[in-house]
This record gives sequence, C-alpha cells and structure tokens, in this order.
Amino acid sequence: MQKNSVIIAPSIMSADLCNLETSIKALEKEGLDTLHIDIIDGAFSPSMPLGIDTVKQMRKLTDMQFDVHLMTNDNEFFIQEMIDIGVEQISFHLESSMHTDRYLNLIKNSGAKAGVALNPTTPLSTLDYLLPQCDTVLLMLINPGFATFKSEKQVPYAAEKVQDLYELIQRRNLQTQIEVDGRVSMDSIATLVEHGADTLVAGSTSLFMKDQSVSENKQTMEQHIQAGLSRRKVVNS
Amino acid sequence: MQKNSVIIAPSIMSADLCNLETSIKALEKEGLDTLHIDIIDGAFSPSMPLGIDTVKQMRKLTDMQFDVHLMTNDNEFFIQEMIDIGVEQISFHLESSMHTDRYLNLIKNSGAKAGVALNPTTPLSTLDYLLPQCDTVLLMLINPGFATFKSEKQVPYAAEKVQDLYELIQRRNLQTQIEVDGRVSMDSIATLVEHGADTLVAGSTSLFMKDQSVSENKQTMEQHIQAGLSRRKVVNS
Amino acid sequence: MQKNSVIIAPSIMSADLCNLETSIKALEKEGLDTLHIDIIDGAFSPSMPLGIDTVKQMRKLTDMQFDVHLMTNDNEFFIQEMIDIGVEQISFHLESSMHTDRYLNLIKNSGAKAGVALNPTTPLSTLDYLLPQCDTVLLMLINPGFATFKSEKQVPYAAEKVQDLYELIQRRNLQTQIEVDGRVSMDSIATLVEHGADTLVAGSTSLFMKDQSVSENKQTMEQHIQAGLSRRKVVNS
Amino acid sequence: MQKNSVIIAPSIMSADLCNLETSIKALEKEGLDTLHIDIIDGAFSPSMPLGIDTVKQMRKLTDMQFDVHLMTNDNEFFIQEMIDIGVEQISFHLESSMHTDRYLNLIKNSGAKAGVALNPTTPLSTLDYLLPQCDTVLLMLINPGFATFKSEKQVPYAAEKVQDLYELIQRRNLQTQIEVDGRVSMDSIATLVEHGADTLVAGSTSLFMKDQSVSENKQTMEQHIQAGLSRRKVVNS
Amino acid sequence: MQKNSVIIAPSIMSADLCNLETSIKALEKEGLDTLHIDIIDGAFSPSMPLGIDTVKQMRKLTDMQFDVHLMTNDNEFFIQEMIDIGVEQISFHLESSMHTDRYLNLIKNSGAKAGVALNPTTPLSTLDYLLPQCDTVLLMLINPGFATFKSEKQVPYAAEKVQDLYELIQRRNLQTQIEVDGRVSMDSIATLVEHGADTLVAGSTSLFMKDQSVSENKQTMEQHIQAGLSRRKVVNS
Amino acid sequence: MQKNSVIIAPSIMSADLCNLETSIKALEKEGLDTLHIDIIDGAFSPSMPLGIDTVKQMRKLTDMQFDVHLMTNDNEFFIQEMIDIGVEQISFHLESSMHTDRYLNLIKNSGAKAGVALNPTTPLSTLDYLLPQCDTVLLMLINPGFATFKSEKQVPYAAEKVQDLYELIQRRNLQTQIEVDGRVSMDSIATLVEHGADTLVAGSTSLFMKDQSVSENKQTMEQHIQAGLSRRKVVNS
Repeated sequence: MQKNSVIIAPSIMSADLCNLETSIKALEKEGLDTLHIDIIDGAFSPSMPLGIDTVKQMRKLTDMQFDVHLMTNDNEFFIQEMIDIGVEQISFHLESSMHTDRYLNLIKNSGAKAGVALNPTTPLSTLDYLLPQCDTVLLMLINPGFATFKSEKQVPYAAEKVQDLYELIQRRNLQTQIEVDGRVSMDSIATLVEHGADTLVAGSTSLFMKDQSVSENKQTMEQHIQAGLSRRKVVNS
Repeated sequence: MQKNSVIIAPSIMSADLCNLETSIKALEKEGLDTLHIDIIDGAFSPSMPLGIDTVKQMRKLTDMQFDVHLMTNDNEFFIQEMIDIGVEQISFHLESSMHTDRYLNLIKNSGAKAGVALNPTTPLSTLDYLLPQCDTVLLMLINPGFATFKSEKQVPYAAEKVQDLYELIQRRNLQTQIEVDGRVSMDSIATLVEHGADTLVAGSTSLFMKDQSVSENKQTMEQHIQAGLSRRKVVNS
Repeated sequence: MQKNSVIIAPSIMSADLCNLETSIKALEKEGLDTLHIDIIDGAFSPSMPLGIDTVKQMRKLTDMQFDVHLMTNDNEFFIQEMIDIGVEQISFHLESSMHTDRYLNLIKNSGAKAGVALNPTTPLSTLDYLLPQCDTVLLMLINPGFATFKSEKQVPYAAEKVQDLYELIQRRNLQTQIEVDGRVSMDSIATLVEHGADTLVAGSTSLFMKDQSVSENKQTMEQHIQAGLSRRKVVNS
Repeated sequence: MQKNSVIIAPSIMSADLCNLETSIKALEKEGLDTLHIDIIDGAFSPSMPLGIDTVKQMRKLTDMQFDVHLMTNDNEFFIQEMIDIGVEQISFHLESSMHTDRYLNLIKNSGAKAGVALNPTTPLSTLDYLLPQCDTVLLMLINPGFATFKSEKQVPYAAEKVQDLYELIQRRNLQTQIEVDGRVSMDSIATLVEHGADTLVAGSTSLFMKDQSVSENKQTMEQHIQAGLSRRKVVNS
Repeated sequence: MQKNSVIIAPSIMSADLCNLETSIKALEKEGLDTLHIDIIDGAFSPSMPLGIDTVKQMRKLTDMQFDVHLMTNDNEFFIQEMIDIGVEQISFHLESSMHTDRYLNLIKNSGAKAGVALNPTTPLSTLDYLLPQCDTVLLMLINPGFATFKSEKQVPYAAEKVQDLYELIQRRNLQTQIEVDGRVSMDSIATLVEHGADTLVAGSTSLFMKDQSVSENKQTMEQHIQAGLSRRKVVNS
Repeated sequence: MQKNSVIIAPSIMSADLCNLETSIKALEKEGLDTLHIDIIDGAFSPSMPLGIDTVKQMRKLTDMQFDVHLMTNDNEFFIQEMIDIGVEQISFHLESSMHTDRYLNLIKNSGAKAGVALNPTTPLSTLDYLLPQCDTVLLMLINPGFATFKSEKQVPYAAEKVQDLYELIQRRNLQTQIEVDGRVSMDSIATLVEHGADTLVAGSTSLFMKDQSVSENKQTMEQHIQAGLSRRKVVNS
C-alpha cells in the first residue's frame, strides 16, 4: 500500500515553555494537529526537558494528538503515566526495554498507538518480530536526548536507514508509519520523505526556524514534502 | 543568634504550568521573592513534575530567588545543570549522595547557597560534620516526591524534628536556615514556625488553597507566622 | 536430522508448592521425566515463584531431569547455584547476559546441558554464532515472568518464530532442541509441534488444566503432539 | 511498661520445603502460632530461599501469624506482594530503603504490623524518628542472607545491642517489640532475653536442632526464656 | 581494496608492570610501534589490570601508538579520559553502549581512531549502520576481561567470524581494520590472518611466550602472518 | 592506652608508575615500611589510578606493608582480590557497604588487618558497633577519589573529627588506629597528630613535595610529628 501524506509534528521543546497555552493555540491555528513531546529522565540521556505534570496540564487545553517519545530507562513507569494522561501515541526505546512485547500491549490496550524508537546505530533486524506489532517506528537521526548539543549532527546514513525500513514495511505489506527525528531541516526534508518518512518531528531547524514565522516555515516544509513525495518510488513486494 | 522572619516560598508545582510567565508575575506582584522548584528524576521517586529546560526559560523572566530542591539520584549532574542556569539555592538529598562535601562545594563555589534535604526518618546525627557547611537544611515532612499521593500525610514528629534541629543550630551558634516542605498547611504553620522553621514551602494546602485568592492566603499565612514567632523560645547555647 | 519425539516438561509452578514431594511423585508415576523449574529474581521480572533452597531439597527426592529456566539479572550467580545443586539443563536469558559464551561454558563444563532463552521480540540473528554452542533454545511465547498476569496472551507470531528457528537449525545441520514456553495450550500444541517445537513447557493451560486429571491431560497432549509431528515438513538444508 | 513474654518464631527455612503443609501442621500442633518467613532476592544477599508463590499457597493452609523478613532491594514491590498475600507482619531493611516512612505506612494501612530490620553494624541512631512508628525492630545478629554460610557467627556485641535498644524503648515509653535473628542458639537465648529480646527467630541452632524433637527443643527454649526473663532488669525512664 | 600487512600489537598486560619504562623501550627496540592497552573497570568484567594514571605516565615515555580497548560500563567517562591522555585509538564494547554514534564521534573529533569491540557471541548484524563509521572492529575471541582465567579458550568459531567480517568489509568496499584479541597463539595466527585479521593483540601465547625471547617470538609470528597472508582469498564485491 | 608513634604511609599514587620497582626500593631505603595503595573503580569516584595486576606484581618485589584503601562499589570482589594477593591491611568505605560485618570478617580471617574508611561528612555514630571490630579507621579529609582535582581542599573540620574519633577510642579503651588521608601537608601534620592521627597518608603535599628529596621531606615530616605528639593530650576514659 502506497502512503501519500506526511505529518508535521512540531516538537514542544521548541515552543515557549513559560507560555505553553499560547504556544499550543498558535500551533492549532496553523492547522497542525500533532504535538511531539519528548520525555527524558536525565539518566537515559543527560537531559530532562519537560515534566510529566506539564503534559498533564497541557492535556486539558487541547485536542491535538500527543505523540510522546520516551527516552527513559524505566519504560513501564513512564508508559503508565502517559496512558493515565491520555495521550494518543507512545514510542519507547528498544535499547532500554526488557519486556518489549509487554510495553506494546500496555499501550495498545489503553487505546493509544504504540511505537518503538531506535537509536541511529541500532540495526533493523531488531524489528524482525516486532514490526507488525508497531503502529510507528521512530528513527532517531541524532543521538536521542542530545538535541541541545550543537556538536550533534544528523547521521550520514539517515536516508539509507529510512529507505531500508520503508522497503521492509512495503515488502511485508504493513502499514507501519516511519517517524524521523533529529535535525530534520529544510535541506533534508525532501530526501527523507522521498525515502519513506511519514512523520517529521519539527524543531528549530524547520518549523521553528528564526527569521521566518511558523506559518511561513510550515509552507516551505510542505513544498519540500511534496517534492519528496513526488520522487518516492514504489517498492514491489 | 535569634532569627525573626520567615520566608514563604511558593512551590512552582502548584502554579499553572501552561502559563508560567503569568503565574510568576502574579507571585511577584504579591511581593513574594522566593520560588521553590522541585526537580525529580522519576527514579529517586516515581514523579517528574518539571523539566530543566522549563527552569532555564523561567530564569529569563524573573529575578525571584530560585530555591531548587533536587530529588534525584545523579546529584552531580543536576547540581551542575542548576548552576549553569544560575539559581540562588540548591538543596540535594543526603540519602542519594556519595560525595556530599564535594556537592556542597560545587554549589558554594558557583555563588549559590547550598542545602541538604533530609527524608522524614533520616536522623539529625547525619549532620554532625555537615551542619556548619550548609546554608539550609530542608526537612521533608512527607516522603519526598510523593506530594501528589493523597495518602501521604505530614509525619507526626514534624514539629519535634524541627525543634531538634533548631536547638542544634542554636547550640552550635550557627546561622543555618530551616526549610520545611510537605503539607505545610494553615493548621500547622504556627507550630512549625514556633519550633524553628525559617522557610515554608507553600503549596496547595496554604498559599494556593482554593476558594481564597493567593493574596488572601498569603495574609492568613503571615498571621500564623507571627503567631508562631511570638511563641518561639530562645535556646541557650 | 529429523527429530521425531516431543518432551512434555511440566512446570513446577503449576504444582502444589506446599506438597512438592507428593506432586513430584505423581508426575513420576505418569512417566514424565523432565521437570521445568522457573527461577525468577523479582528484578528481571516482577515475580519470584520459587526459591533456590526449594530446588535443592527437590533434588534429593527425584531423578527427574531438572530443566531450569533462569529469568534473572545476575546470571553467573544463579547458574553457579544451579550447577551446585546438580540440575540437568540450565537456560538463561540472552537479554540480561553480558558474557554469554562464558555462561554457556560454565554450564557445559559442569556436565549439564546449556540453553539460551529469548524474549518474544528478540530476533534470531542474535543466535548467529551462538546456535552451535547451545543444546537448547528456549523461545518465550509470552513475556517471561508474567505468566500469572492474565492479560498476557501468547504472541501472534509464535508459530512463525518456531518455524524460523527450526529451519535455521535444519539448514545448519544442528541438533539444537527447541523449547517453547508461555500459554502452551491444547489449542496450540499441534501447531507448535508442527513448526518444530521439541519440548513443551506444560502448565495450567495444558497438563494442569482443571476438570481433567493430569493423566487425561497428558493423553490429550500426546494426541496433539502426534498430530503436529505428522504435519511437520522436512527442511532441505 | 514491662513486657513479660517471649515469642518463639520458627523459621520456615529450617522446615521441610518439599512437605510444607506437613511441616506447618506439626508446628501448629506444638502450639507455635508465629511463622518467620525470610524473603531474599539474590541481590540484597546471595541467597533466595523461598518464593512468593510458596508463601501465597502457605497462606491458605494455616492461621499462623506470618512474620515476614524482607532482605530485598526493591522493598516497595515485595511489601506490596506480602500485603496482597495477607501476612501479619512485614519487616524490611533500613539499609536498602529510600522512602522508609512510606513503606511503614503502606504496611500499617494494610492492617499488618510494620518492622524495620537492621544489619549487625547499623547504629541505633537511625531509629531516632523511626522508633515510635515501628511495631517491631528486627536486630540481625549475623549478616542477613548468609545464614547458610557456616563461617558466619553471631556478632560479639549481640547482647549489648539488644540491651541498648531495650533501654531506648523503655526510656521513650514505647511498646516496640525487639526481634532477634541469627544463630539464636540454646547457649544464647537466656542472655538475649535477659537483655530485652521479645521474639526469637528459631532455626537449626534451637528449635530445629537435630537429635531432639521439635517438642523437646521447644521445652528447652522455654526454660532458657524463663531464665532470661527472671534476670531482666527494669529500666527507669 | 586488498590489505597486505598485519600489525602486531603487544598487550601491556603481558609486560613487567613494575618496570614499564624498561618494557616499553624493549618493545620499541624490536620495531613494534603499537601498544595494546586493556582498561577494565572491575564491573564490566571481574578484572582491573591497569590504571588510568599509569597510561597517563606511559604517554610521556613513548611515541608508540596507544591502542586502547575499553572493557567498561561507563564508556563516556573512560573515552574522555583516554582522549585527554592523547591515545591514538579507542575501542569500546557495543554491549555496554547506549549512545554508540555519540561515542564514535567523541573519539573521532579528538583526532583518534575509533573502534567498536564485540563479545564472541555478538552478531555482525549489530554493525549494519556502524561499520562505515568505524576505523576498527575488535573481535574478542575469548570473553573480554577473563584473559587470566585459564579455563577460557578461544571460541571455535573464531576464524569463521573473522572471515564473515572480512567479507562484509570487502563487499561494502570499506577500509575498516579487523583486530583480533584473545588467545591469539602461534597455532592460530596463520588461520586468523588468512581469514582477514589486520591486527593481532599479542600476549602470553605469542609474543611473550616463555622460553623464547620477544625477538624470536616476533620472528615466528611474522612467519605465521606471511603464511596467512599468502593463503588469503580476495573477495569480489 | 596512650599511643606514641606515628606511621608515615607513602601513597603509591605519588610514585613513578612506570618505574615502580625503583620507586619502591627508594622508599625502602628511607626506612619506610608501609605502602599506601588506592584502588578506585571509576564508579565509586571518577578515577582509576592503579590496577589490581600492578599490585600483584608489586607484591613480589617487596616486604613493605601493603595498606590498601578501596574506593569501590563492589567491595566483596575487591576485598577478595586483595586477600588473594596477600596484603597486610584493607580498608573499605562504609558508604558503599551493605554487609559491613561480613567484609571485616573476610579480611580478618585472611590474617590481614581490617579498616573502615569514612567520607568527610560521614558521622562517627556509624561506628557505634563497628569500632571494636576495626583495626583502623581511615578518615578521608578530602572527597575520596578526587585527589587529582585541584579544587579539592582539606575539610575545615579535619582536626575536630580526628579529635572526636580519638576521644571515642580512648573512652572505650580500644587500640583502633586513626589513619588520615587527603592533603596531609607539612602545615597540617602537627595539628592532625596532636589531635590523634596514628598514620599519615603521604603524597604530593608532604613526602613527595618537589624541590626537596624524599629523604629531606621525611625528616621535616618527622619533626612535625614530634611537635604534634608533644602537644597531644591524654583523654581520661
């Protein structure tokens, strides 16, 4: 099955954290309906951008789809917290998971969509039995939790890995979404979409680029997305 | 030395987390100049109210004194993050500290004030050599990080422990401040102050009590504080 | 090499833990000669069914083959304990193993058979260099250590994974046994055997099903096993 | 308040673990109404005598008081399991506890009695604020979890520590019970009781001594207890 | 690209640790220009041969290439220490790495060469996206950190794994070096080289064999290396 | 009992680590018979000066008393390694010890002397039951494992803590030695000795001070020691 649209998921980390209500309303006004939320515990990675209570209060303000990316060690605890808040999608890292099948079931039984996130160097063979159980696979294109470290650049094999996953999904006739995260910039969007990305996590190098408004940036992103989609090749399964 | 004033330190956890700028400005307008900030890592306790990036952005908005209470396992990491942000006071838990003397020095060398926080059942003998090195001792009166668990009540020995610490400080002729945190309510303020509390962490059972405005609650708190101060006994060293 | 028989390994967890001697004697009388023993440490998974000292005392009562499945973090410790007791087979989880080759050698040097256990979602590529070193591969068909959680169901890819492993073993001309564990029920036995299972861990959904005696359940199991074996296809290496 | 009786608490570890029902009935017949149960997780100490499921099944067989001693790292998990089973008393180790006050409340709110256990070298000053919250203090007289290591001997300061705790309790006018565990032998019983022990954990060096029946051993123990009680001094508070 | 020379990297662990300066000068005199240094933290494996400060002082004495093999849990810490010392190559274990891509970049940005080390049983599929980022892949042929355990033998699939990696590298047209470590003995050198080994870690079973001088052992090694190289087959990519 | 002599224990960390044999012989020639050896695992503190194998080789070269200070998390492992090497004294940190009594017995049963080491802020009440079991108490006067961090200064309460421990030992009529470690400098020796120090760990601020020879520094140290001893007051028990 060919997929033909791409979701722009603005990252809450790029918003004004002291005026979240205003920020969220502005995103809604742009017609954006997915909000990407990074939860990091300070131990999986040396960073802790946002708190759980903040997500809880945001939940009351908006009907946007909450797309949560857990970068945590105690996945079962954080999954349960996000389920209690009522988010729409939860992705957790395979590298810190012991009972992966269980976590996926916890999420799906709650009614939310379930994803697994992969570090840049994690091979796709880890998905051999997992792929059909996932609504989404989140491919990290920089080291997770290091977004604020300027030395971190998108890995050179980003497009190749997206393409490999895309072919895997097509060959197995699955509907799994490919989400890409990490320095997704105006320069790289068309290529990432061409190779199969379905959801783009949008931060300071795309939707929130300075000098332009969010509205203008969104338009530019959509042009790159269209360019990418038009170049996308069908994979024969 | 007799101390004669008490600080009300509103807890940011009780504020509107989606409109922090507005909340902070309102507190400033009330003449409150200390903001109590709880940083929990989800591992020391099963809670993670607020993120580091949120504190970073708040720092740009206000000159209020940031009084940070770390409930974390990797204290050196979180202390360094708070120093980088430029907060005015950092307290960390003795129970999760290996190199306590080092952490105190890191904080004091940065120009901030340094405190240690104690779980309810932790004895004061742990302070034998520490006390003169601390600007503050933060006595937890409920289990730290469980403030949102309704089953948690203030420990019955709260006033006794405050009094014991107060006498210890007086006897040793120190200036260490006593900060109390955990269900500090209208009912208990006078008693806690009487027994020696210098700073009251103020949350949903005092400053942010519903039905009354913050301004009204502050006035009530101040009356209880005065009542407490007037009953406080001098300790002969 | 074609394998033509299937072992029924009753799980001690389904026995009467307060009358183990009686339970074991009853199993012996049924002609069952393998006893499956789950050792869980409460940390690998939130469960701890049986103690080491219990296994030690059982050892004195019976000559049944003790087939131990470790669901533990400190594998070297538990392997050594089981070696000291004198069990016939030890399987440990790859997901909690750092020095896998060493653990296998420890077991084999003691004279016992060595197996590795895989979580449901763990890919078979992890066995690339391991397979020829293993007497057994234990495929978990539910999340290990969650057998008493009613929400846990056998994974939908159970038969597929058994088949994949079976073909791998046949193609490489190995004798490795395939052991399956997790909701192995009357409904699924024939299919699991057809796809290559050599040992069935038998619990409350097969050998110990209520309303029927162990003897009757064993007979039913054997019928399903025969049906499965008759449908098994030879893999051309 | 003077306490005048002493409880003999046979340790289930000394019983026949493959015939627990028979063992328990025999203890009941001797008029013993408390059963001491050691739960060790293999990580707190290198030992794991008994499983949780075994305790669960024992619960259905007897009305004896289950006096559980946790030697575990994840105390909250094991406390909750024991509460679910419905035991009468739970003691956990202070040395592996972060939120001690919380654990005590969890136990007490369930209707069970709550105790803290102390390693031999742990000072009593750790009890400064804890003592009035505890129904029992369990003093370990050997290293906890090493009972099967023959090199382990009762610490030379056993009686001194019991006496110190006894005086503390008397001086503060509390009812806290003193439980002693670790090589409590015929030789030491009178002395331990004299110095204040209220409950004796009885294992292979007392109640289960070979050559004598449990009944005979119990009689001997009772004589030593009486001797100890008669020598006990009243502490003036 | 065909590679035609093989490096002998003497392991510092086999040198006289109380006379390192003398030992290093002797190795230099033999024309050896690479020094293999094992750093083990006592937790990754139960061994800690050498300290960081020792490496720091060695650095001042010689221009030999320091080829560091980290067998550590906290890879980021040890990598940073080695960078500060100024070593020429750092390999760390994939099995204890969370942010692999980050560690490689830290090393390469410092000007050193970067390698990953694999336990014997770790599959090569873990290198799917990593291989082009690595200067070296270090294949452990015994369990890492257990070199002093006499029971440890080279794994039977040593040559096979070297060959598999060699073909992978040739097929992808990469220049990655293959380093082999663990019981690299006179008997096995020709075979390991034949199958693709580029660097041989040389210890007590080759360069430092007793009864012969280092000079004589080196000559024998070189003969085996030539024999191996002459048998090496070109892989058509 | 009054103690009248003080041991100078040169720290091996201050020696020439690439010429240990020469360094040790030079110390022997000065009549020094105790060698202080710091073993740090990189996890207890971010440092790892020396390896176990280095200690093993030093053991063969000298009859000096090896006085080992473990700054490690896995104390039982490192204690056993040091026992196997045959050192004369082992001190481990109380702050990372679970089974303190057991570790002391392991050491003493091996024939070595046993000590506990205390971080600067650790109170002496932790020694309540331990003190009579210890041959030595090692008081850290800087944070352990941070000796190479220039920001680390000797704690201002160094002399006070030494004095408190000295009085405790005198009052209880014990023979326990007081060892002090951390910036023990020419300036502070007399004071530390006056207040009760029995062993001085000597590093770069005393015995190994530059500009003077070890021999000259030793003489200066001995003068300060005499000055200190002459000022020491007897404690009436």
